Amino acid sequence: MCSEKKESSNFGLLDIVKQCDNFPYPEETVEIQKFNTTPLILNDTKIGLLLPSVIQALRSYNEKHESPSPFVIKEDLVTFSPHVNTFEKRTKAIEQLLNSWRTEKTFSALKGWRDELYPVYGDPSGPSNMAFVIERAATPLFGVLTFGVHLTGFVKTKGHYRIWVAKRSKTKPTWPGYLDNTVAGGIPYNLSITESIIKEAMEEANLPREIAKDSVPAGAITYFTVTERGLQPEAQYIYDLELPIDVVPKPFDDEVECFYLWDISKVIDHIKAGEFKPNCALDFLIRHSIITPDKEPAYLDILYRLHRRHEFPGPSFQS
Amino acid sequence: MCSEKKESSNFGLLDIVKQCDNFPYPEETVEIQKFNTTPLILNDTKIGLLLPSVIQALRSYNEKHESPSPFVIKEDLVTFSPHVNTFEKRTKAIEQLLNSWRTEKTFSALKGWRDELYPVYGDPSGPSNMAFVIERAATPLFGVLTFGVHLTGFVKTKGHYRIWVAKRSKTKPTWPGYLDNTVAGGIPYNLSITESIIKEAMEEANLPREIAKDSVPAGAITYFTVTERGLQPEAQYIYDLELPIDVVPKPFDDEVECFYLWDISKVIDHIKAGEFKPNCALDFLIRHSIITPDKEPAYLDILYRLHRRHEFPGPSFQS
Repeated sequence: MCSEKKESSNFGLLDIVKQCDNFPYPEETVEIQKFNTTPLILNDTKIGLLLPSVIQALRSYNEKHESPSPFVIKEDLVTFSPHVNTFEKRTKAIEQLLNSWRTEKTFSALKGWRDELYPVYGDPSGPSNMAFVIERAATPLFGVLTFGVHLTGFVKTKGHYRIWVAKRSKTKPTWPGYLDNTVAGGIPYNLSITESIIKEAMEEANLPREIAKDSVPAGAITYFTVTERGLQPEAQYIYDLELPIDVVPKPFDDEVECFYLWDISKVIDHIKAGEFKPNCALDFLIRHSIITPDKEPAYLDILYRLHRRHEFPGPSFQS
Repeated sequence: MCSEKKESSNFGLLDIVKQCDNFPYPEETVEIQKFNTTPLILNDTKIGLLLPSVIQALRSYNEKHESPSPFVIKEDLVTFSPHVNTFEKRTKAIEQLLNSWRTEKTFSALKGWRDELYPVYGDPSGPSNMAFVIERAATPLFGVLTFGVHLTGFVKTKGHYRIWVAKRSKTKPTWPGYLDNTVAGGIPYNLSITESIIKEAMEEANLPREIAKDSVPAGAITYFTVTERGLQPEAQYIYDLELPIDVVPKPFDDEVECFYLWDISKVIDHIKAGEFKPNCALDFLIRHSIITPDKEPAYLDILYRLHRRHEFPGPSFQS
């Protein structure tokens, strides 16, 4: 059993959501200009967003690189050079760039190297519309949309909810020691969404496949976070899993320190205390009528910010 | 029992959502410029959006009006004149304007006069942050955010859903004869959200209060529709109501022609045939795992467009 921190701060729920959706909206023109971003473009489609520090490092790399250089850097956009024109070539060009930046310690974001490849979409001739794949830790440098899964495991007794809350391991590169959804993880380029949730439930919470497979999809949350690592537009597919009281999630890999089974009121107290990773639980609490529109003044604003529209393309597949 | 139309078209679900969220987004600069709208401003806050035809009619009204005229019309904004500075005075100024337009048949939108007052928010010194109230039929002329409630009544047997679908009366001023949520209606300025859903359930579906009060809130959908009546940014609070099989909604007022209890597959067929009012049912189908992300290619795009962020202010109240 791990120790519980006593909550102290008291944020509004909208404040919490704003911590995860903190990149300005297109209509916030003054705020957005301060970021001075440059879009990463592929065939007229915006697939990422680069901060000035990344543009500068990309320029240096291009200059040192033997000709022809792999990237085209213009005043108002960055794109791949004409010879870097396939999924494989783009993936290779990005890999070489990142190896160089990693060796030269150009960006602290790359210290959290994961050895996990994430898809970046936008090329209809690539597999499932993928333009390239990229090391997970590097995604904030390119401001590309990343995809993940969230699972809320809960116990319902006589209409009364308790939620299985994970405490993130203190060694995690992002949000160490924070409270989290029961299971959360990225979607690697080679797994379906449902397979991703089952795999993560097994790895993070030691839930067997025959239990995890009963997870039901219930929507997605989308938001755009700015952190010290860079720009992180994210989409998290949301799953619910009602668990029998005798099924107890247990840490399995090193991602989670421990699990708590908490009443809703305790979950909300800890959310308001700022102890949860800020992208957690609110969508569940709204869908399950725990946060209600007659009681929560920021109901609509919370929903907007949990469903931010990203312009970036996603996967294509046959329905 | 009323007759069923046989479905013929076959739209994708995203096409349907785009019919209800068809006003361009801020980043779609070319499309948005074509509308050439002017914001209605109150104390630096945008509370509405006016088309050129409305600006022109407002200019004529101002010129004919005895001095001092109630509206200030500038190149880049419209606002109330300094002497029209309270909730009551704005409400009166709008009422007089609409009476004039109605008499002169300036806008066909006003033919559907409802005698229902809708709130427009944005004045912290007004009741619940209201700037004024306005006749419902006139809201599209001012592009003000309107609020409504949606209720999906359903029967669940062994994990299998059936939905109570309303067929709108052929005499309704908007979407006559279309299929609809079980219960839907606007939120008048003097009712809470929960009271609105109970009232509408009683009036439209003859559901008694002791049943309707078990409706549970599960979120909201928000979108921005352009119609021949004007500009309609909307927010609909979403409620679910599981009904026993022996509770049968029945038309009570003249809003609904009849109700059907349909299997999900039949509901989806009729949605794809374009027979539903396009703001219906998709949110329910996503939350209840009927539309799933591994099967629906436009899953995220559908969610974005059902949760469009409106800049316009909403009500204020103590939580």
